[in-house]
Amino acid sequence: MKPTLPKGTRDFNPAEMNRRNHILDKIKGVFKLHGYAQIETPAMENLSTLTGKYGEEGDQLLFKILNSRIHESSKKAELLDEFNKSLKQNTNSDLLTERALRYDLTVPFARYVVMHQHEITFPFKRYQIQPVWRADRPQKGRYREFFQCDADVIGSTSLLNEAELVEMTRSVFNELGIPVAIKVNNRKILTGIAELTGMTDKMIDLTVAIDKLDKIGKEKVIEELMTKGFSPAAIEILDPVFNHQSTSAAETVLFLSQWLKDSPTGMLGVSELQELLSYVGSDSIEIDISLARGLNYYTGAIFEVKAKSIAIGSIAGGGRYDDLTGIFGMSGLSGVGISFGIDRIYDVLEEAGKWNEMNIDGNNTKVLLVNFGPAEGSYCTRAARDLRSHGISVEVYPDSVKMKKQLAYADAKGIPYVILAGSEEISSGILTLRNMASGEQQKLPFDQIMEQLKQG
Amino acid sequence: MKPTLPKGTRDFNPAEMNRRNHILDKIKGVFKLHGYAQIETPAMENLSTLTGKYGEEGDQLLFKILNSRIHESSKKAELLDEFNKSLKQNTNSDLLTERALRYDLTVPFARYVVMHQHEITFPFKRYQIQPVWRADRPQKGRYREFFQCDADVIGSTSLLNEAELVEMTRSVFNELGIPVAIKVNNRKILTGIAELTGMTDKMIDLTVAIDKLDKIGKEKVIEELMTKGFSPAAIEILDPVFNHQSTSAAETVLFLSQWLKDSPTGMLGVSELQELLSYVGSDSIEIDISLARGLNYYTGAIFEVKAKSIAIGSIAGGGRYDDLTGIFGMSGLSGVGISFGIDRIYDVLEEAGKWNEMNIDGNNTKVLLVNFGPAEGSYCTRAARDLRSHGISVEVYPDSVKMKKQLAYADAKGIPYVILAGSEEISSGILTLRNMASGEQQKLPFDQIMEQLKQG
Repeated sequence: MKPTLPKGTRDFNPAEMNRRNHILDKIKGVFKLHGYAQIETPAMENLSTLTGKYGEEGDQLLFKILNSRIHESSKKAELLDEFNKSLKQNTNSDLLTERALRYDLTVPFARYVVMHQHEITFPFKRYQIQPVWRADRPQKGRYREFFQCDADVIGSTSLLNEAELVEMTRSVFNELGIPVAIKVNNRKILTGIAELTGMTDKMIDLTVAIDKLDKIGKEKVIEELMTKGFSPAAIEILDPVFNHQSTSAAETVLFLSQWLKDSPTGMLGVSELQELLSYVGSDSIEIDISLARGLNYYTGAIFEVKAKSIAIGSIAGGGRYDDLTGIFGMSGLSGVGISFGIDRIYDVLEEAGKWNEMNIDGNNTKVLLVNFGPAEGSYCTRAARDLRSHGISVEVYPDSVKMKKQLAYADAKGIPYVILAGSEEISSGILTLRNMASGEQQKLPFDQIMEQLKQG
Repeated sequence: MKPTLPKGTRDFNPAEMNRRNHILDKIKGVFKLHGYAQIETPAMENLSTLTGKYGEEGDQLLFKILNSRIHESSKKAELLDEFNKSLKQNTNSDLLTERALRYDLTVPFARYVVMHQHEITFPFKRYQIQPVWRADRPQKGRYREFFQCDADVIGSTSLLNEAELVEMTRSVFNELGIPVAIKVNNRKILTGIAELTGMTDKMIDLTVAIDKLDKIGKEKVIEELMTKGFSPAAIEILDPVFNHQSTSAAETVLFLSQWLKDSPTGMLGVSELQELLSYVGSDSIEIDISLARGLNYYTGAIFEVKAKSIAIGSIAGGGRYDDLTGIFGMSGLSGVGISFGIDRIYDVLEEAGKWNEMNIDGNNTKVLLVNFGPAEGSYCTRAARDLRSHGISVEVYPDSVKMKKQLAYADAKGIPYVILAGSEEISSGILTLRNMASGEQQKLPFDQIMEQLKQG
C-alpha cells in the first residue's frame, strides 16, 4: 500500500521550510519592532463558535470533527434517527459533530478577545500565524490547509493604527525585496459613491461589481451593474470610477473631495484618507476607489497589496472593522488589521529567483567532518563540539564508509565545506579543508579552519 | 452566548507564546548546529495512513474528520445502512470519514520518508515541531491538542547518532538551565535479562512491570510479575534490577558484562552501551536497566530525560527503532530519535521561577512614545521609525488620551521605557525618558535616548 496525502494538503520539505521561515522571520521581525504580540489558538473550535460566521458557503466548507466513540453511545436509536433526518434535510447532525477546524484566524481571535478580555491591555496589538482549513475544491495555488498571518490592533479608532499597518507592510516587503503597490480605499468612499447614484440599497451589488474592474474590465463591470438594475444614468455617474486618472494619492483625494462633496459619509471617508496620507506620505500608497474586498466586513480603511513585477493577485490585504467581537456579545471594539498571504509571497520570491540569489535551500550545515573510522571518530566528535560552540553548524558523517560516498552526501545536501581528518592529519595537527563548490583543498591548522568557517 | 474552548484545548497568550518560543528557539538552535533540517506535514492524514499504527486504543483516540457534503451524497440509503451497521458493530464507517488528525509525528514522518524517498539524501536528519491531537480524557497536564518536538536520523546504524542525540539533549537542557539526568538503556539488555529468567515469551510483561520501578517501587513490581506468572526463582534472578547500585555508568557496564555473559543478545547490548559511553563520556549519562519506554517499538538504545530538581516525569525520551518505514512497504531503514516534551519543559522552567528571572513576559516593546496630539503625532511617527531602524521595538500610543492612561498602558504591558515628546520638548530637542520601573525621568537629546535604549 503506497501512502498518499489527503487532497489539497502538502508536506513541506527542508528547502520549503527554510524559505517559509525566511519569510515568516522577516514578518515577525517587523511585527515585533512595532510591539505586536503573538498568540495562538487551538486548531479545533466548537462548532457553535464557527457556524454562521462565514455565510452559508463558509459553513459548507468547514472541516468537522466526528464525535469520538459514537458507536459507544447509549442513544444509538436516537443517533440513527438523527442521521436519517439530517440526510433528508440536507443538514449536519449535531450528534455526529460538535467541533470543527478553524476556517480563518479572525473568528478565533474574536473568541479569544472575549474569553480573555480581563487579562488584555487595550489597545491590543496581536499577531497570529497558523494554518486554517477549508473543504474547498483544491486547485493550483489553493489548498485545503494553508497558513494565515494576521496582525491586528483592536480597541483604538485612531488612524495612526492604519498608518502603522501601512508602514509595517512597506517594511515587510522592503525586507523581502519585493516591490509592491499598496492600494488603499475606504468603505465610506464606497458608501458616498453609492449615495451619488441614489442606489444605496444596492451597495453590495455595486461594490462587488466594481471590485472586479481590475480583473474583468470596464465593459463587463457595466454589464453586471445593468443586470443588477443600475440605470444608464446611475452608471454615467460612476464614470470617474472607471476613468479617473491621477498622478498621485494626494490628487485623487482632491478629486474625491469635489466629487463626493454632497455625501457627508463620503466626505468623512475623504478626510480619513487625507489624515492617513498625512502620516504615511502621498508616495507610499495608491488610492484605488474600486477596491472593496469583503465589503460587508470592513467599515473604514481597506488595504490591498500587489507585487509590482509579477501578476499573482493580492499578496496582503486588510482593513478596519467596527465590531470584531459583537458576534460573541462584546460590542464596541473597533479594530484594524492586515493579513499576509504567505503562499503567494513564497511564489513571488520563487518566480523572482530570490531563493537561488539568497542561497536558501534545505541545507543548514556549514561543514561535514569525514568519518575515517573509530579512532578518528572521537577526534571528530571533539572537533565538532568545538566548532559548534562557535556557532558553526557541523555534521560528522555517522558511518565510516568510502570517502567518495561521504563527499557525495555533502554534495547532494549542498554542504559547502568538508574537513578531512585522517590519522596523519590528526597527528600533524594540519587538517584538510575542502571547498565543495570549487573542489579546492587547503591544508590548515584547526584554528585557522575555524576562523575561515566563521567568516565564510 | 458566551464562547468556550473545546475540552482539552488551550489558547496561548503573548506571555505563554514568548516563553514557548524561548524553549523552541533554544531547541531549534541546537538542532541546526547539528545539521538537522526541519519538515512539516499536514494536520490531516488519510485514515488508512493512521489506523492500526497505534494499537487498538490508539485507533479509538484518533480525531476523525467528517467527510464533507455527506448530505449531498447520491447514496443516502447506502450511507444510512452503513451508519446503522457501524453502530451495531462498534466500528466507524468509512463512508463518514476518510481522514483524521495526526496522532503523533512518527507515523507522518514515516509516510513522508516513503513518499519523498527519491528526493531525500540519506542519512536523513530531520526535526519536526507540530501539534498532535488525541481524543484522550483531558486532565491536569494532559491535553487533546499538544505539541511534539522530534529529532531523528534515519538511514544509519552507527552509534555516533545515538551519541549525537545525547550531546544534543545535554546542550538543550544546558542552554535552558535545567539540570537533568539522561538515562539510557538498551532493548538488547532487556532481552538478555529476559533470557536469564528463561521467560523470553513474557518479555513484554517483564519490561512493562520493571519500567514502573521508579513509580510504584520494588514490592509492587514483584507482585505484578508474580501475577503474570514469573516464579520466585525467576524473580530472584531479577534481583540486580532492583538492588544493583553503582557509582557510575562505566561500573554498571562492567557489572552487566558479567551478569549477562551467557546471553549473546545481552552482550551485544552491553557492547553498544560501552561504545556509546566511549563517545559521550561516563559522566554524562546514567544507565538504568529498568528503563523500557514503549518497548515494542525500540530495538536498540532507549533514552529518557528527567529534571533533577523537579518531580514531573520524563521531559524528553527516545531510542532506536529498526524499521520506521516498513509499515508503508519500505523496509530496512533504521533510525534513532529523541522527542522533547515542550509542555513539561515549560512547567519545569515555571516552577524553577525562570520566567521571572529571565524577564520573559508578554511584552516585546522597549519604549512607548506618549501621544500628545496630532501635531506631536507626526514627530513621534518619525522618531519611532528612526528607533526601529536601530532594532529598538517601539509603540506610539495611538490615541491622544490623558497621559495617565497612556502610562497605565505601558505599566500594564510591562513596557520598560516611555518617551515624552510634547511640543516644548520637540522644539527644544530635549525629550523626557521615563524609566517605568523606577519612575525616574531624564531629559536627554534624542540621540542619547537612542543610545541608552540600544544598550539597556
